[in-house]
Amino acid sequence: MRDRVSIGIDIGGTKVAGGVVGPDGVIAGRRRRDTPHLSTAATVIEDLIVEVVEELMTGLDPESVAAIGIGAAGFVAADRATVVFAPHLSWRDEPLRERLQHRLPKPVFIDNDANAAVWAEWRFGAARGHSHVVMITLGTGIGGGLLWEGQVIRGGHGIAGEYGHMQVVPDGIRCQCGNRGCWEQYASGNALVREARALVTSRSPIAMDMISRVDGDPANLTGPLITEAAREGDRMAIELLAEIGTWLGVGMANLAAAFDPGIFIVGGGVSAAGDLLLDPARVAFAKQLTGRGHRPEARIVVAELGNDAGLIGAADLARASVDGP
Amino acid sequence: MRDRVSIGIDIGGTKVAGGVVGPDGVIAGRRRRDTPHLSTAATVIEDLIVEVVEELMTGLDPESVAAIGIGAAGFVAADRATVVFAPHLSWRDEPLRERLQHRLPKPVFIDNDANAAVWAEWRFGAARGHSHVVMITLGTGIGGGLLWEGQVIRGGHGIAGEYGHMQVVPDGIRCQCGNRGCWEQYASGNALVREARALVTSRSPIAMDMISRVDGDPANLTGPLITEAAREGDRMAIELLAEIGTWLGVGMANLAAAFDPGIFIVGGGVSAAGDLLLDPARVAFAKQLTGRGHRPEARIVVAELGNDAGLIGAADLARASVDGP
Repeated sequence: MRDRVSIGIDIGGTKVAGGVVGPDGVIAGRRRRDTPHLSTAATVIEDLIVEVVEELMTGLDPESVAAIGIGAAGFVAADRATVVFAPHLSWRDEPLRERLQHRLPKPVFIDNDANAAVWAEWRFGAARGHSHVVMITLGTGIGGGLLWEGQVIRGGHGIAGEYGHMQVVPDGIRCQCGNRGCWEQYASGNALVREARALVTSRSPIAMDMISRVDGDPANLTGPLITEAAREGDRMAIELLAEIGTWLGVGMANLAAAFDPGIFIVGGGVSAAGDLLLDPARVAFAKQLTGRGHRPEARIVVAELGNDAGLIGAADLARASVDGP
Repeated sequence: MRDRVSIGIDIGGTKVAGGVVGPDGVIAGRRRRDTPHLSTAATVIEDLIVEVVEELMTGLDPESVAAIGIGAAGFVAADRATVVFAPHLSWRDEPLRERLQHRLPKPVFIDNDANAAVWAEWRFGAARGHSHVVMITLGTGIGGGLLWEGQVIRGGHGIAGEYGHMQVVPDGIRCQCGNRGCWEQYASGNALVREARALVTSRSPIAMDMISRVDGDPANLTGPLITEAAREGDRMAIELLAEIGTWLGVGMANLAAAFDPGIFIVGGGVSAAGDLLLDPARVAFAKQLTGRGHRPEARIVVAELGNDAGLIGAADLARASVDGP
């Protein structure tokens, strides 16, 4: 049964995306629902998941489907059954696996979306062949996954990899998590847009080109727009990506001190900036790495599977739980 | 052969300590040599190790000895054969295992001393029964070990667990590693003594009792003396241990965000301060932990095996490599 497909579902803050994933990681069919808003009731999300899975399974031989994997942005308990806390959803200690298993015809597994993503990159993407992998997903915040000798390290309570909430600046910028100085306040899409808005609002001389680009309205600034501007040579955008990248490198050096990975995979929307982000990160990493000169340095590369990593990984983790690796 | 003993050797900056360790972790015999000074030639240390092992094996049935384990303060490569870099010794890419194996009658394994310590605490000490363990050894600096599902995580290049060199203060105090703001500059025996000396030297009002305690000479200050003073109610000593403890808690919250251990084990000389150190650490940890209120909190406890953890762990890791767990 090693050639069975699986169903992967990626639940973010604003969408439920699903796909049929082959044992080779290729997505054969997709479905998607937008979720109305942050406070969408848990049962509504559940209904959307069931709808998406049923649509994806229509026309498939049920025998050819091994399992259903759900990747969710939130703390998932070590039992891979309960969503303990999802900051962008209304789930609190939600027994999601049990609820879904009653309504779906195949074994269901829940994972944190970043854990799913690092698995996908290790099986099919940029981390193939590596035994010690740290994945950093730069979206609105920082997501993280940790893989060691072919296994996702989920932590004692299932919530490892929350790198974004490591403190890098004492008494620093307040984070949505309630603390101050969290890494993701300095190296994330939110940080990029916040700093750009500050420069545009203050009408800094370096912001003049950007001000015309957004018709003078800081609210029009987005991560993709800043990345595009940087690619076209906008000095402010290049500087801001370098700032974000420098903080990225500092945080990666911290993670290297602790875990000593062979490779860092950088994914998420902000990683689309490529070397405009990663070159400053590599410089800061090399400067900050403890024992530099006496140790091999980890590689720092962009993720290969883009936005599909969570979906592919959730599906493949579920498949591997049923059919083996 | 599961009842064979093993020989453990702990190499620090100033000593070579050895012991015969039973499969139950109990030390049956000890030998020790002081090492002259930091620049002691690699071959001298080697000779001392061979001497200590030979003395320990005298009178033992050679068949009853499974292996010889060396725990060294330094970067040990993932092959457990090479000391890449030892800050307090003159080893640089030293093929220690090969050199010793030529001269010793049993299989030799090299490990980082902190890796050995976390293994010992998991097998015989405070971490028994835990699957996700972070050990923090507070000596002159911070050593670290990481254990997951009964395996020491050594990292992609063998040098995981260097927690002490995670940056906690941007542009902070210069560290011996060459960087600034490393955690061990804020939470270690060195930090404790440095701050105490500064207060004594400045003749701060809070230092008056301590000044008489050290006969006015800041050079007389040591970690154990400060801990003893704190136990006797010295206000300056209590405050300094609380400062160190607070930074300890902040760094542990960072590690919890990344690795989510079930338990933190705090060892090393400074841990002798017990709750004078750990209570402030627990407060800072609880305050700084991301997702607090939505997650189980890791326990924070003092190591049980004291200075013997490295020796016992090195011996038992070697034994387990030959005879199985």
